[in-house]
Amino acid sequence: MNISSKLLSNAVDAFSSLPGIGKKSALRLALHILQQDKERVNDFCKAVQTMRADLRYCKVCHNLSDADICSICTSPSRQKNVICVVESIREAMAIENTQQFNGVYHVLGGLISPMEGISPNMLEIESLVERVKNQPNCELIMALSPTIEGETTIFYLNKQLEGLGANISTIARGVSFGGELEYADELTLGRSIVARIPYKNS
Amino acid sequence: MNISSKLLSNAVDAFSSLPGIGKKSALRLALHILQQDKERVNDFCKAVQTMRADLRYCKVCHNLSDADICSICTSPSRQKNVICVVESIREAMAIENTQQFNGVYHVLGGLISPMEGISPNMLEIESLVERVKNQPNCELIMALSPTIEGETTIFYLNKQLEGLGANISTIARGVSFGGELEYADELTLGRSIVARIPYKNS
Repeated sequence: MNISSKLLSNAVDAFSSLPGIGKKSALRLALHILQQDKERVNDFCKAVQTMRADLRYCKVCHNLSDADICSICTSPSRQKNVICVVESIREAMAIENTQQFNGVYHVLGGLISPMEGISPNMLEIESLVERVKNQPNCELIMALSPTIEGETTIFYLNKQLEGLGANISTIARGVSFGGELEYADELTLGRSIVARIPYKNS
Repeated sequence: MNISSKLLSNAVDAFSSLPGIGKKSALRLALHILQQDKERVNDFCKAVQTMRADLRYCKVCHNLSDADICSICTSPSRQKNVICVVESIREAMAIENTQQFNGVYHVLGGLISPMEGISPNMLEIESLVERVKNQPNCELIMALSPTIEGETTIFYLNKQLEGLGANISTIARGVSFGGELEYADELTLGRSIVARIPYKNS
């Protein structure tokens, strides 16, 4: 693209450095910004910069937080002894969106992966063990992806947490709602038969 | 979407105020920004803010410009007596991208449209008449959209420029390259037959 203005071209480059935004979309965004009030543009930049500067990680659950301890961990209506263990903030957000969970989270910050060189000490596993020690009779829900890395991480966590009296469960795996049985992969279908549940409970 | 962090939620709102960016994409952009260096984020915001603050319109052609007079109008390699009249900066940019035009531009800032209440005095028509008066033997290329508004504007400009000695042309209209004749609309096809050109010139 041939942009004669250096200022415009810089802004287009800035926008197109964002993921999923190409040169054409970036130009559209830049021209949109040009038509906005200066104040609105400053507000936009302030929101982005303040977020980058002030957002931190909750000292308890390692989720994103505005304060030292996040709003979920401080909420009196949340069950502190039901801890959902997730890979990253994205999964915590996805579970929050279901509005089906009233406990708290623990964000590991990744999954154990020898292939990618991620070892247990790089994750928030020690802090999870500490949390479980300080929280008698707690339930841990392992909401990790059903991949080799996820299963490895669950296996490792299970070993680390042995003897601490925590009740460990994993999220249910099976055929998706609305999914055609015919097209489900063999592993999922096989597991969903082995892990069948009484009709009354479903 | 349920975002527990106010800072993140503000940034997501900021991004989703941009055209074509929904809540999910905005969240992805915000999380991307979070992973960037503070400096890079500041550079991003600076590029956007500086563009909004410092970009102005060329005093000659009313195209976007970094200085009082744009780089196209000041370029010694551009033919100053071939003026391409366009509706907005977008069309000027599109024509620049073809790399087929070596003249200068005149951005009207819109098209005459009684329906939308846009009258000739709201457009840069007077300044075009002045330009033509000061530029003897110039050629004006009307590169306006082939709509009622475009045709009206060309008609009006033609009347205003009468007797000033300018050579007025319009861009060629016809069937697109790669387009199937069968699917071309009747008006375009009809026009392309009426305005047929000798094979040698095509």
